[in-house]
Amino acid sequence: MSDAIRVLVLHGPNLNMLGRRAPDVYGTATLADLEALCRDEGARLGLEVDCRQSNHEGELVTWIQEAAPSFSAIILNAGAYTHTSVAVHDALEAVGLPTIEVHLSNIFRRESFRHHSYVTPQAFGVICGLGFDGYRAALLALANRLKGNNGA
Amino acid sequence: MSDAIRVLVLHGPNLNMLGRRAPDVYGTATLADLEALCRDEGARLGLEVDCRQSNHEGELVTWIQEAAPSFSAIILNAGAYTHTSVAVHDALEAVGLPTIEVHLSNIFRRESFRHHSYVTPQAFGVICGLGFDGYRAALLALANRLKGNNGA
Amino acid sequence: MSDAIRVLVLHGPNLNMLGRRAPDVYGTATLADLEALCRDEGARLGLEVDCRQSNHEGELVTWIQEAAPSFSAIILNAGAYTHTSVAVHDALEAVGLPTIEVHLSNIFRRESFRHHSYVTPQAFGVICGLGFDGYRAALLALANRLKGNNGA
Amino acid sequence: MSDAIRVLVLHGPNLNMLGRRAPDVYGTATLADLEALCRDEGARLGLEVDCRQSNHEGELVTWIQEAAPSFSAIILNAGAYTHTSVAVHDALEAVGLPTIEVHLSNIFRRESFRHHSYVTPQAFGVICGLGFDGYRAALLALANRLKGNNGA
Amino acid sequence: MSDAIRVLVLHGPNLNMLGRRAPDVYGTATLADLEALCRDEGARLGLEVDCRQSNHEGELVTWIQEAAPSFSAIILNAGAYTHTSVAVHDALEAVGLPTIEVHLSNIFRRESFRHHSYVTPQAFGVICGLGFDGYRAALLALANRLKGNNGA
Amino acid sequence: MSDAIRVLVLHGPNLNMLGRRAPDVYGTATLADLEALCRDEGARLGLEVDCRQSNHEGELVTWIQEAAPSFSAIILNAGAYTHTSVAVHDALEAVGLPTIEVHLSNIFRRESFRHHSYVTPQAFGVICGLGFDGYRAALLALANRLKGNNGA
Amino acid sequence: MSDAIRVLVLHGPNLNMLGRRAPDVYGTATLADLEALCRDEGARLGLEVDCRQSNHEGELVTWIQEAAPSFSAIILNAGAYTHTSVAVHDALEAVGLPTIEVHLSNIFRRESFRHHSYVTPQAFGVICGLGFDGYRAALLALANRLKGNNGA
Amino acid sequence: MSDAIRVLVLHGPNLNMLGRRAPDVYGTATLADLEALCRDEGARLGLEVDCRQSNHEGELVTWIQEAAPSFSAIILNAGAYTHTSVAVHDALEAVGLPTIEVHLSNIFRRESFRHHSYVTPQAFGVICGLGFDGYRAALLALANRLKGNNGA
Amino acid sequence: MSDAIRVLVLHGPNLNMLGRRAPDVYGTATLADLEALCRDEGARLGLEVDCRQSNHEGELVTWIQEAAPSFSAIILNAGAYTHTSVAVHDALEAVGLPTIEVHLSNIFRRESFRHHSYVTPQAFGVICGLGFDGYRAALLALANRLKGNNGA
Amino acid sequence: MSDAIRVLVLHGPNLNMLGRRAPDVYGTATLADLEALCRDEGARLGLEVDCRQSNHEGELVTWIQEAAPSFSAIILNAGAYTHTSVAVHDALEAVGLPTIEVHLSNIFRRESFRHHSYVTPQAFGVICGLGFDGYRAALLALANRLKGNNGA
Amino acid sequence: MSDAIRVLVLHGPNLNMLGRRAPDVYGTATLADLEALCRDEGARLGLEVDCRQSNHEGELVTWIQEAAPSFSAIILNAGAYTHTSVAVHDALEAVGLPTIEVHLSNIFRRESFRHHSYVTPQAFGVICGLGFDGYRAALLALANRLKGNNGA
Amino acid sequence: MSDAIRVLVLHGPNLNMLGRRAPDVYGTATLADLEALCRDEGARLGLEVDCRQSNHEGELVTWIQEAAPSFSAIILNAGAYTHTSVAVHDALEAVGLPTIEVHLSNIFRRESFRHHSYVTPQAFGVICGLGFDGYRAALLALANRLKGNNGA
Repeated sequence: MSDAIRVLVLHGPNLNMLGRRAPDVYGTATLADLEALCRDEGARLGLEVDCRQSNHEGELVTWIQEAAPSFSAIILNAGAYTHTSVAVHDALEAVGLPTIEVHLSNIFRRESFRHHSYVTPQAFGVICGLGFDGYRAALLALANRLKGNNGA
Repeated sequence: MSDAIRVLVLHGPNLNMLGRRAPDVYGTATLADLEALCRDEGARLGLEVDCRQSNHEGELVTWIQEAAPSFSAIILNAGAYTHTSVAVHDALEAVGLPTIEVHLSNIFRRESFRHHSYVTPQAFGVICGLGFDGYRAALLALANRLKGNNGA
Repeated sequence: MSDAIRVLVLHGPNLNMLGRRAPDVYGTATLADLEALCRDEGARLGLEVDCRQSNHEGELVTWIQEAAPSFSAIILNAGAYTHTSVAVHDALEAVGLPTIEVHLSNIFRRESFRHHSYVTPQAFGVICGLGFDGYRAALLALANRLKGNNGA
Repeated sequence: MSDAIRVLVLHGPNLNMLGRRAPDVYGTATLADLEALCRDEGARLGLEVDCRQSNHEGELVTWIQEAAPSFSAIILNAGAYTHTSVAVHDALEAVGLPTIEVHLSNIFRRESFRHHSYVTPQAFGVICGLGFDGYRAALLALANRLKGNNGA
Repeated sequence: MSDAIRVLVLHGPNLNMLGRRAPDVYGTATLADLEALCRDEGARLGLEVDCRQSNHEGELVTWIQEAAPSFSAIILNAGAYTHTSVAVHDALEAVGLPTIEVHLSNIFRRESFRHHSYVTPQAFGVICGLGFDGYRAALLALANRLKGNNGA
Repeated sequence: MSDAIRVLVLHGPNLNMLGRRAPDVYGTATLADLEALCRDEGARLGLEVDCRQSNHEGELVTWIQEAAPSFSAIILNAGAYTHTSVAVHDALEAVGLPTIEVHLSNIFRRESFRHHSYVTPQAFGVICGLGFDGYRAALLALANRLKGNNGA
Repeated sequence: MSDAIRVLVLHGPNLNMLGRRAPDVYGTATLADLEALCRDEGARLGLEVDCRQSNHEGELVTWIQEAAPSFSAIILNAGAYTHTSVAVHDALEAVGLPTIEVHLSNIFRRESFRHHSYVTPQAFGVICGLGFDGYRAALLALANRLKGNNGA
Repeated sequence: MSDAIRVLVLHGPNLNMLGRRAPDVYGTATLADLEALCRDEGARLGLEVDCRQSNHEGELVTWIQEAAPSFSAIILNAGAYTHTSVAVHDALEAVGLPTIEVHLSNIFRRESFRHHSYVTPQAFGVICGLGFDGYRAALLALANRLKGNNGA
Repeated sequence: MSDAIRVLVLHGPNLNMLGRRAPDVYGTATLADLEALCRDEGARLGLEVDCRQSNHEGELVTWIQEAAPSFSAIILNAGAYTHTSVAVHDALEAVGLPTIEVHLSNIFRRESFRHHSYVTPQAFGVICGLGFDGYRAALLALANRLKGNNGA
Repeated sequence: MSDAIRVLVLHGPNLNMLGRRAPDVYGTATLADLEALCRDEGARLGLEVDCRQSNHEGELVTWIQEAAPSFSAIILNAGAYTHTSVAVHDALEAVGLPTIEVHLSNIFRRESFRHHSYVTPQAFGVICGLGFDGYRAALLALANRLKGNNGA
Repeated sequence: MSDAIRVLVLHGPNLNMLGRRAPDVYGTATLADLEALCRDEGARLGLEVDCRQSNHEGELVTWIQEAAPSFSAIILNAGAYTHTSVAVHDALEAVGLPTIEVHLSNIFRRESFRHHSYVTPQAFGVICGLGFDGYRAALLALANRLKGNNGA
Repeated sequence: MSDAIRVLVLHGPNLNMLGRRAPDVYGTATLADLEALCRDEGARLGLEVDCRQSNHEGELVTWIQEAAPSFSAIILNAGAYTHTSVAVHDALEAVGLPTIEVHLSNIFRRESFRHHSYVTPQAFGVICGLGFDGYRAALLALANRLKGNNGA
């Protein structure tokens, strides 16, 4: 297992409320369900997935900083910090790992303050509105990329 | 085959130049390669995929209008019309099919005029920057959705 | 009949979906119904009405260019091109016919991108939100104007 | 006569100057002429029309508030208050009668401060640039609507 | 009673429609009910409360100008003039009485044109969204302030 | 005296508070003092000056409308309505008399909402910050203009 | 005591400096004084009040998330995070408790970056500028609301 | 002749109206006159010039895509599409030919919506306001450039 | 004469073209005429007036710096530098003399780039649109001020 | 030679650095080279060309003022002052000579502060990005215009 | 040592990555190197320097709050929180110590979101782009200031 | 001495007023004092310092152009031209010398028009608010840089 390609899946504030918050937008499945899905789907693709969640901007920053060299890529749903955190932006830039930004809902159909992301300039891809399938897609794209398959 | 779920994959202007235009951004694979990938991946998922490309806004509008009832969903990479076409927006609204917006590159890291999309308000999901994998992801998400599997 | 005053009624993209698109906004009557109403109402007012619809910006531009000298006035519901087409603006300016802009719905109560019109600077009058009655009103106003009755 | 459908036609500031102010824009007919036209045209359509004009925002607000239940609809040319009066907006909202906004000139071809209207969000239809014909059109549309004829 | 501290409670346009306008937002109690509440609550706190309402900006301006020296403080719900009246702003500045701005609804959750207030720069406190309780709170705060109790 | 050139001096809201409001900005002289100065200075220049003040926008509008033909020019300090009244703008346009806009203070050094004037587009000259001398200057300039002396 | 209605009073960054920071704005009473006032006033109204303060955005988010079901309402003075924290906004939305936003000073008379609040869209009421009385008012309004007394 | 350097001259919508539209701005010469001038002037400079015009954005896009390798450079007067067409921008980027943007009139002295060009970022030079001479200048500059003469 | 109050009248770029530039706006009198008027009118009021003109921003700055202590006040028509020169602003601030800003035309009715002035924040009064009378008015106001007569 | 048509070619700040500044943008030829080219090309076209350069805004203003009547036209590359000088704008307006604005580089592909020009509103034509060929083109267009050949 | 003047040097998020993040921008020296430099340089100037770094906004806020009275001044490089933290702004205001803002890079030459600082309004000086020398300069300036040497 | 590294210290408009202008902001020391300090401090660091001041934008431009090759670096306090001079920007770009921008005051705490600098994009470092110490710091940083010591 030590040879596995490792992927860090990070969730920002309020994603621990998944299944409880706005179920009409996010459904009733919980964060634990989503993390299990990521680990299972990762395993299927030959990726070892580690999942963490924090309500603290500083903790997310530290986790991102420490991601290299033990991880090869990051899947980041920074929640509200997506829209406000230059610190997360800078941590991603500092660590330099390939990153995919994921959002459960289509953030561009919600409040205008959700239309700008500080994560996007540091992510090679963005997926939103696909619910849990967004994580499946992100893992698939990372697996292809990390194994040297280009998108085409 | 008549019972297959049918998906319409539409490409807008200049995507016929794929493999020729800005290969550092889009790679060297052609639109024909991409369309073949969509058909194959769709078949694997039980979807019958029909692919079309046009440089004409009006032709894209007409194809979208005519998509129902023969198709069950749309994958739309409207290219430049993403950013300028209210007509495409209205056609999607009129036809009312579930739609995923796909872009090969991460449009939010390019010129600012590519940061706004008239497709997004009519799409339930958006994928960008994943290259051809974006289409794989879109087909996967549509297959799950059309078969009644929710995202979770 | 050859002496009749001729009016060109032009419809832009997606108005061919009338009766099918957003019936809560536009009702269930079709474009054919609307065109028949225009012809009948025109006849009642001594106007010969010719109706056309296109999803293509370029085709609308060409029709407008060719309107003079065979037509004496234009009623234009440019649909989505109302908000994006400088080409339609320029064609109206080039042909120089008296024009009334009509919209079925009150565009100022809808998305903000519908609040600006490139048609208005070239139209002497604007009518919106009156449904089919808007066309009745436009024909009445044109008839009065073309027959030399001023508005007062 | 007590069974007549009653319509309130309100004019805002400076419309009492009609025929005297900027005759190149508004013509030489007076407000009295316009009000007579409204009453006559209304009678022809089976509507009893009551016309009032005020230079006072507060008086217009009061008249709108008191319009229900004695009137069934309002035709409002609020003049300059169109662009500045939230109070008129709120009065229309409070009274809840179907309202058509009318302007003699095409306000969108004049100074930019005339391009925004606080009346529009409370009106189902807007007519501008048709001179006195705009009132004929408004009365026609109201008559159809109040008698249960939809726009189609 | 002549030694009572006197407070002027002013209501702007359309607040006379209370109980009739948008009852889902403002409830069914009337302005008379609210004024009675203010007088009763004031009496309980040792304040003599005088209530007035006008749809006229100029009348509100005059009442504010004349408030000193007979009144010691003002509670002002200027309604729509909150957002448009520099004249009310200047009258408050001229009279120099301690003022609390009150709104029944949370104006910051409504149309964007209600997010700016010309009253606020001349008011030491603002209360919104608490319905009639907002007036109770305003009277309490004024009573404490006028009797020399600081907020702490 | 019946042959005198007549000038209308209009003051808007809160100028009746002169000498009481913000004396550090406007001094302690009253509106009556200012009006006397205008009449005296006018008499010295051969002008008959009539002075009026109102807190009501509608009243100012009416006075402006009625200024012609009995008056030959207007000096207007519209106070707060300077910044908010399209109705005053339109009344000035309708009456078409030569107008000078006066402000006691330098409005461009005060709050930003005082930097825009709806009076200026209808006034040939603007004077601000000169206190009562501004009126002396305005009367001098009007006298020269009305007597056919050009500015040079 | 177990049947008491419980209210959570949360203070954000720098409110622990109360009495030390900018005493001309906030006075010399301390946060401990304010919290005691809240508990006493709450007890008087039959509410059990729990008070907490944090300089950490993430800690405030967590406290809000955990407020339900043990608390029935929140009084939130988020300090600086009022203006920058989408995470607090989302936590309030997720927990869904009735919330009142309180500020000691009138934030609309301070720097422009304090004029926007991410708390307001999730709060039914806002109180600012009343000092400690703002908390008395908030508790009164919550008590009435939680006990089924509407504002009127 | 097969060794000639070939230049593609493209005209966008409404340029087919040349000589008919706004003759005070554009003169009375027709598009045929202009195309003849381009061919003649090109021949004089050793360039083979091919001229085309379309009202269809999609057709212009296709012609630009197909310009390479048969043409060595493009002179583009995209008319109204200059200001609205991202698709034309992308086609120019895809084909990568040296391009000069030409406008008959000085677009910066006309409506503000003509001040922005999507062509400019893909053109090495811009000429406007010189009428037909602008084409002479463009051909001269292209001839120099294509023959290896730098601008100096 | 050494006891005279001295006033510096400064003219910026292109005012040396007076009588030659845009005579419909500025008339045919020359700068020499205007300077003579200033000297004569000043003498009448007991002021010694010195007039200078420069097209160089730096020279105007130097003249303003050197104005104290030999001059008691400045009348400044900075022409185009009104709208662009922070250096003139700073020189006025440094020298600290009472200053009146004068413009021959009503700059607020001309191009929008003339609506902002860097002189105004350093001037106690502004006069525009009165032609040469503006200088008469400025000299009158300065004479009153320098002799201790307040504006009232 | 005294009957020659004379053209003034003016260069603004830093164009004396030509050949030394940013050679990748402007090439290595010097201002002297460019001026020689202008004189030679002018002579070929029957124009007598006088060239001047200054780093001083005021000096450029003076040269423009003095251009008439000795010169018949101006070619102006105002360098940095293009973007900041209202004084140059006004001098061009005052002198009223036909003017062509030239820039060596395509200013619209450089920093955004170079996208606005105060010269353009006073120039009938604009040429940018053609290097020295831009001057050839300008001279050609002026020669045609001054000799009465219209652009067509 | 107890008599030493103490200075607190605070570093915000990602500055712990110094030497690892974007070495082309920040060089290869580490935060430990920088802190040693600060302590050494401080000692040379008679200042006792204490250095801390945190990725947590709340921790920086707390450290700033606690800086007085044990420290006499603050040198703050808040990293990403410079641009987003009102809480840091308020903590600096609350503690009231003389503060210098330092950035290693010239933040004004980077992304536009780095051009605004919430630290600057609370700092008497700002230094950016000088790398580690910026800290030397800050310590020198603080030493001079704290010892009563003014900047001159 | 001929081997000394030479630094050019340039001061823009109104800095010759130092000690006279706004002494509360800039202190009472003069420009001569500051220049002596620069020469002395430079000598201490092995730099030969030449100081110049001008109120003329063009003169500053010329001095910057001529700085190379005789000088190795520039310290530039461009005063008001900081905010308005593209010409200074371009001269710095043309000459290509390492430059530090210095301001005596913290320009970001003053008027908003001082918040933007055209010097910054051409300077590697910026120092403001440190008074004369800012020049000491700039000289120290230049000495280190020119001698090959990097900032670390």
